[in-house]
Amino acid sequence: MTKIKLGMVGGGNDAFIGAVHRIAARIDDRYELVAGALSSTPEKSQASGKAIGLARIYDDFKQMAIREARLKNGIDAVAIVTPNHVHYAAAREFLKRGIHVICDKPLTSSLADAKKMVKAAENSDALFILTHNYTGYPMVRQAREMITGGQIGKIRVVQVEYPQDWLTIEQDFKQANWRTDPAQSGAGGSTGDIGTHAHNLARFMTGLEVESLAADLDAFVPGRQVDDNGHVMLRFEGGAKGMLWCSQVAPGNENALRIRVYGETGGLEWAQEDPNYLWHTPFGEPKRLFTRNGAGTGDAAARMSRVPPGHPEGYLEGFANIYTEAANAIEAHRDGSKADAAVIYPTVMDGLRGVEFVDACVRSSARNAAWVKLR
Amino acid sequence: MTKIKLGMVGGGNDAFIGAVHRIAARIDDRYELVAGALSSTPEKSQASGKAIGLARIYDDFKQMAIREARLKNGIDAVAIVTPNHVHYAAAREFLKRGIHVICDKPLTSSLADAKKMVKAAENSDALFILTHNYTGYPMVRQAREMITGGQIGKIRVVQVEYPQDWLTIEQDFKQANWRTDPAQSGAGGSTGDIGTHAHNLARFMTGLEVESLAADLDAFVPGRQVDDNGHVMLRFEGGAKGMLWCSQVAPGNENALRIRVYGETGGLEWAQEDPNYLWHTPFGEPKRLFTRNGAGTGDAAARMSRVPPGHPEGYLEGFANIYTEAANAIEAHRDGSKADAAVIYPTVMDGLRGVEFVDACVRSSARNAAWVKLR
Amino acid sequence: MTKIKLGMVGGGNDAFIGAVHRIAARIDDRYELVAGALSSTPEKSQASGKAIGLARIYDDFKQMAIREARLKNGIDAVAIVTPNHVHYAAAREFLKRGIHVICDKPLTSSLADAKKMVKAAENSDALFILTHNYTGYPMVRQAREMITGGQIGKIRVVQVEYPQDWLTIEQDFKQANWRTDPAQSGAGGSTGDIGTHAHNLARFMTGLEVESLAADLDAFVPGRQVDDNGHVMLRFEGGAKGMLWCSQVAPGNENALRIRVYGETGGLEWAQEDPNYLWHTPFGEPKRLFTRNGAGTGDAAARMSRVPPGHPEGYLEGFANIYTEAANAIEAHRDGSKADAAVIYPTVMDGLRGVEFVDACVRSSARNAAWVKLR
Amino acid sequence: MTKIKLGMVGGGNDAFIGAVHRIAARIDDRYELVAGALSSTPEKSQASGKAIGLARIYDDFKQMAIREARLKNGIDAVAIVTPNHVHYAAAREFLKRGIHVICDKPLTSSLADAKKMVKAAENSDALFILTHNYTGYPMVRQAREMITGGQIGKIRVVQVEYPQDWLTIEQDFKQANWRTDPAQSGAGGSTGDIGTHAHNLARFMTGLEVESLAADLDAFVPGRQVDDNGHVMLRFEGGAKGMLWCSQVAPGNENALRIRVYGETGGLEWAQEDPNYLWHTPFGEPKRLFTRNGAGTGDAAARMSRVPPGHPEGYLEGFANIYTEAANAIEAHRDGSKADAAVIYPTVMDGLRGVEFVDACVRSSARNAAWVKLR
Repeated sequence: MTKIKLGMVGGGNDAFIGAVHRIAARIDDRYELVAGALSSTPEKSQASGKAIGLARIYDDFKQMAIREARLKNGIDAVAIVTPNHVHYAAAREFLKRGIHVICDKPLTSSLADAKKMVKAAENSDALFILTHNYTGYPMVRQAREMITGGQIGKIRVVQVEYPQDWLTIEQDFKQANWRTDPAQSGAGGSTGDIGTHAHNLARFMTGLEVESLAADLDAFVPGRQVDDNGHVMLRFEGGAKGMLWCSQVAPGNENALRIRVYGETGGLEWAQEDPNYLWHTPFGEPKRLFTRNGAGTGDAAARMSRVPPGHPEGYLEGFANIYTEAANAIEAHRDGSKADAAVIYPTVMDGLRGVEFVDACVRSSARNAAWVKLR
Repeated sequence: MTKIKLGMVGGGNDAFIGAVHRIAARIDDRYELVAGALSSTPEKSQASGKAIGLARIYDDFKQMAIREARLKNGIDAVAIVTPNHVHYAAAREFLKRGIHVICDKPLTSSLADAKKMVKAAENSDALFILTHNYTGYPMVRQAREMITGGQIGKIRVVQVEYPQDWLTIEQDFKQANWRTDPAQSGAGGSTGDIGTHAHNLARFMTGLEVESLAADLDAFVPGRQVDDNGHVMLRFEGGAKGMLWCSQVAPGNENALRIRVYGETGGLEWAQEDPNYLWHTPFGEPKRLFTRNGAGTGDAAARMSRVPPGHPEGYLEGFANIYTEAANAIEAHRDGSKADAAVIYPTVMDGLRGVEFVDACVRSSARNAAWVKLR
Repeated sequence: MTKIKLGMVGGGNDAFIGAVHRIAARIDDRYELVAGALSSTPEKSQASGKAIGLARIYDDFKQMAIREARLKNGIDAVAIVTPNHVHYAAAREFLKRGIHVICDKPLTSSLADAKKMVKAAENSDALFILTHNYTGYPMVRQAREMITGGQIGKIRVVQVEYPQDWLTIEQDFKQANWRTDPAQSGAGGSTGDIGTHAHNLARFMTGLEVESLAADLDAFVPGRQVDDNGHVMLRFEGGAKGMLWCSQVAPGNENALRIRVYGETGGLEWAQEDPNYLWHTPFGEPKRLFTRNGAGTGDAAARMSRVPPGHPEGYLEGFANIYTEAANAIEAHRDGSKADAAVIYPTVMDGLRGVEFVDACVRSSARNAAWVKLR
Repeated sequence: MTKIKLGMVGGGNDAFIGAVHRIAARIDDRYELVAGALSSTPEKSQASGKAIGLARIYDDFKQMAIREARLKNGIDAVAIVTPNHVHYAAAREFLKRGIHVICDKPLTSSLADAKKMVKAAENSDALFILTHNYTGYPMVRQAREMITGGQIGKIRVVQVEYPQDWLTIEQDFKQANWRTDPAQSGAGGSTGDIGTHAHNLARFMTGLEVESLAADLDAFVPGRQVDDNGHVMLRFEGGAKGMLWCSQVAPGNENALRIRVYGETGGLEWAQEDPNYLWHTPFGEPKRLFTRNGAGTGDAAARMSRVPPGHPEGYLEGFANIYTEAANAIEAHRDGSKADAAVIYPTVMDGLRGVEFVDACVRSSARNAAWVKLR
C-alpha cells in the first residue's frame, strides 16, 4: 500500500501539538511525512525541519503549497498545526491546490475566517479534516453508537466539562502566551482552547446541535486578556438541556474532559483521563462498566482499537484514529470510491460550529450572560 | 447526664425521614424520644406512635405543643419532619412555648412562610436547628476548616451538583407524590428538595453567599408540575462564580451530591456517596487524599467522628452529628452558658437563604433564566 | 416491644471497641444497656460505668453475673468486649447462668480456651453471638446470597486481605499494647486481630471451609513479639484455592479488608472501606456495580439496610446489624419460637474456626510455612 | 539521524504481539522495519510480509540471519516475536552474526534454553533486549526512582498480581492454543505468560531478587495441561517478603497487573490498567496521587513520557519506551560510546531470572508447595 505523503505547517522545535500530530500519523503507518514549513521564520523552519529529518523544507506555507502542488510526487495532504489565527491563511493555499488539509482545532480565531474556511473547503475537491481528537477515542465511538442505537432513550440532559489548571497563575512561555493572546487565539481563551473540545464532544456523542446558550466568562488571573473560566448553560435542538464548564484555573485538573449524557431510559459517562472505560447506567438496573475492546462493546469501538482489553490505549492512539480515518477517506478519494460508512472524522462544518460556539459565548457574556443563538 | 426529652411531629409509619431522625437522635445517646404527633390524622398518629413505643401520643402538633409545655417534664425539643408546607405552622407552636425546634429542610414551602419562621425564631428564646444534614459529615467540616485556614486561597470557582434518578419516570407513592406537588413541596421540585442541599453545602463549605443566579429549570417527565432538573449559574459575593446542577432524572445517580471548590492556590473535592474521603489539590503539588480521622486531618473533623480511619461512617452518622451539635447547644442553653465555639449547626437564617434560593431559581427560570438577586 | 436488657464486660473509658458495641446496640433501638463491669479494677469500673450513666455498676464480671442472674429484671444478654484472654472466663460465668453472650472476636486467645468456650456454649441454653461485624455489611450479605444462588458458579479462587498500617512503627498505647502482647492477644498478632476477620469473611461469603494452609509470618518491627504481617496460602474443602494477606505494617492502608471471589462463571469483589458497593463480573459480560439498596439487589441485603441507595451506611451500621440479628434470635428464644431463616450471626463455632486458623498459621510458620490442617 | 534497520521473526497475520512490536518501533521514529520471516512456513511468511509491505521477505529466520548479515545495509536489529519455544533457536542465529536481538518474553520455554541464551548473548558483541514491556511505563520508572531514592525506606512487603480472565473457559484459537501447550509455552502456563511479568516488575521496581518461593499451581479448566492459576509466596534477598498471584481464570480481570510495595516509611501502588497514576503513601501523612508528567514527578518518568499530564499514555507507549531505550543503547553501541546512565532495558539476565522463576514455581508446586531456591 502506498503511503499518503504528508506535509506539515507549524509544529517547530518548541511546539507541543506538532509532535503529537507526527506520532499520530505514524502509529498506523498510513502516512509518510516528507515536507514542512514548521516555523514562522525561514531560519527556524530550516532548523526544525532538519531536526526531524524532513526531505523538503520550505520557508513558509505559501512557498510549500505552490511547490508541492507542482511536484509529481508532492504531498497528498498537509497537517496545519500553527496557532489558530494562521489556520485559514495556510489552509486556503493548500485547499485551492487540491491538497487535503488536516487542521488543528479550533478551526480559526474568528468567525469571519471560519466562514471563509468553509467556502474554501467547499470550493475545493480536497478533503478537510479537523483534529477534534477526542472523537477518536474508542469509547467515545462506543457511546455514540449506543446513543444512536437508542440505548439511553431520548436525551434530556448533557453535562460536559473540561477543567485544567495550568493557567491558575500567570505563565510566560510559548504555549501559554499565544493561547492567552486574543490576536492569536481569538476572542475566546478557555472557551476556544478547550471549551470547543467539550462542545464538539457533546455534539459528536449525542448527535444534537446546541441551539442557544448563556455564558458567564471570567478572566480570574489579573491581566489576562481572554477568559480562563467559562460557565455555560446550553439548550439543544429538540429540547435537551446542558451545562458546559471549561476552566484553566481549577487546581488539580490536568485535562479532565468529562461528559455525562442522560436520556429517558439510561445514562452514559466518559472521562478523557481514563478513556478506556465507559459507564452505562440503564434506569432500574445495576451500573455497567464497559471497557475498550471488552465484553459487550460494539463495532464502532472495535475498529478504533489496537490491543486487547485491559491494555490501555491513550491520547496518542485516539489522535491516531483521526489520522487513520483521514487516511481512509483520502485513500477512497484517491480511488474515486466512497469511504466506508463507518469512517467518521470532524469536518470543516464541525469547525464552524465550534467557532460559532466561541463567538456565542463571548457575545452572551458581554450581554450579562443573556441567551444567544449560535447562528 | 440527663438526656434531652424529644418530641416528633411527622415521621409516621410510611415516612422515610422520620426514621432517619430517630436513629440520628439515638446514635450518641443524648436524646430520649418521649412524645409525638406522627401523622396527619389522630388515628394514624396513634398507630404510628404505638408502633415505636412512644410514651405520649398526640392527635396533632398543636395539642402536643400545648400539653407538653404544661408538663413538668415535658419535651425540651421537637423534631419536625412533615412535608415542607407544614413546617412553619408546626414550628410556630413550639417556638412560642419555648420548646427548641429541630426542623427538616427546606425551611418552608414558601418565601412568605420562611420569613415568618425567622420572626418566630427571633421572638422565641428557644433554639432553631435546621437539619441540612450534609454539613454534619466530618470531611465537609474538614474542607470548611481548610478553606477558612486559607489552604486553597481566595475562592474563584465552585462546582456543586446533586443528581438523583428516582423520578426518571412517573412515580406514584407517598414520598414521590408530596415532593412533586407544589402545594406541599413549594414551587421548586428538584431545586427545593435537593438543590437547597447543594446550595447550602456550597455556602457552608466556602463561607460565601450567593448574590445572584440564573436558572434554567425543566420538568422533563410529562405531567410533572415542578422542576425535575435545574441548571443554575451562580455569582457569589466577592466575585467567585459557580455552577449548580440538581436533577431527579439522571439515571445512574442515587444521591450523588458532589462539590468542588477552586481557589487561587488549590482545590478541594468531596462527594456524599463516598463521604470519608476529601481530595486536596494544592496547585503545583501531587493530589492528596485525606480520609476521615486519617493522617493530616484537623479538629473540626475529629470532633465529628466516632471510629478509626478506614472504618467508614455514613449518612446516619453525619445526620447524628447535627443532632449532637443541637444537643451541645441545647445543653448550653439549659445551663445558661455558651456553647463551645466549635459547635456549628444550620440555623433558621440558613433555612431562609435556602428558600430564597428556590424562589430565585423559579423567578429566574420564569424570565428565561435572567439573572436575579437572591434577596 | 420490651427492649432486651443488656450488660457489658469491658469497654471502659479508654477502650475503642466498647463504645462501638454500645452505639451498635442503640442504632435499631432493640437493647437497653443497664449494667456493666467495664474495667479491670473496681475503681475504674465504677468511674467508667458512671461516665456512661449505667444503672448498675459491678466491680467485676463474676459479681455481675451472679447478681444479675438473681435479679427479677436482670440482664438478658451481656456484651463481652475485653482483651481476648479474658473472653472465656467472662463468658463462662454468664453462659452457665443462662444469660446470652455477645462476644467480641477473636473468640479466645488460645485454642484450649476456644474449645472450652464451645463446650460452655453447648452446655448452656443461652445463645452465643460472636461479633465478626463485617458479616453484617449488607453487600456482604448480597454477595453471599449471589454465591449461594449460583451466580458465579463453582468457586475456584478466593483472594482476601486485610492490611492496616498503624503498627508500622513501634507504638505505645493501650490498644497497641495488648494487641502485641501474646499473653493478652494470643500467639497470633495480625493473624489474630485481623487475619481472623479475613478468614471469617471468606468462609461466610463463600460457604467454604479452609482445609489446610501454609503461612509465612513475620514480625517486621524490631522487638515485636507477635506477627505484624502474614502471608497465607489456603486450600478449601472441595478444591478451591486462596490467598490471605494480613498486615499491620502496610503504610497507606487503614482498614483495607477486601475480598475477591472467582467462580467458573463470574466473580465478585467487595471492600470494607467502600462497603456500599459490590462488583459482579459475569464472564463475558460488562462488569456490574451493585449498590446498597440499589437496583438489582436482593432480600438478604435489603433487610440489613436502613436508608435509600446512595446514602452510605458504614461500619457502625454493619456492626448494628449483628446486634439486630442477635436481638432477632434472642427474642425468638424468649418467645420459644424459631428465629426467621434469614437471621444469621456468627456463632461460637465460627469463633472456634477462627482460633483454629490462628493456631494453624502459627504452627505452619514455625515449620517453615509447611501445609497444616486446620483441625 | 539514520534510523535503525529492523527485521522481525514471527508476528504474522494472526499474531497479536507482532503488531504491537511494530507499532512500538514506529512511535518514536527510531526504527525502519525492512525485513522479516513472519511465519512458520515460507508461504505464510511471504503472505504476511507482503501484507505489511516488507522490503525483504524470508522463508525462515535462519535464511534471514544469513542473508541480512551479508548485506551491506542489512538489518541492525531483529525483533523475535514467535512462540516461546522458538526464541532461543532464532536469537542464536542473529546473535552469532552480530545482529542485536529484541526478544519477546519469557526468554525461552525451558531453563536449559535460557542458560544457552545467556551464553549466546555473552559470546556476542550484539545487544540483547527483552521486552518486559511493563518496565517501560513512566510511573513504573517513577516508583523505581522513588524506591532507590529511599522515599519508602527499607522494603518489607511486596504484593504483586496479574489476573486475567480470558482462559476461564476452554478456548480454541491460536493465541490460546500455543499458550496452553507446554511444548510451545514451556512448563508454566499462567506463571510463564504473566507470572513472569509480575515477577519481573517486582524485581525492577524494588531492585530486590527473589531468593526462594513456595508455589501452589492449579489447572482449573478440565483438560488444561499447564497452570492457569498460581499462588506464590516469595522471600526476597535481604528479608523482604512477598505474595504473587497470577491467574487466567479470574472473571472480570482483563490485564490487571498490579503491584504494591511497602517499606519502613511508606508505600507505593501502581496498576497497569490505569498506568498514568502512582499512589505514594508516606506513613503518617495523607496519601498522594502522582500523575504521569504531573506535579512532583522526576526525571526517570519524564524521559519516558511524550504528552502533558492528564493526557493518558498507554500500553503501546510503554512498549515503545522499551524500543526507544533499545535504540538509545544500539546507537551508543554503533558510535562506540556508552549509553546514558538513565537508559535501562530488560536484559538476557532478566530473562534468565524469569525462566528460573517459572522453573521454581513448577518444582515447588510438584513438591506440595515446598520452599525452593530460584537458583
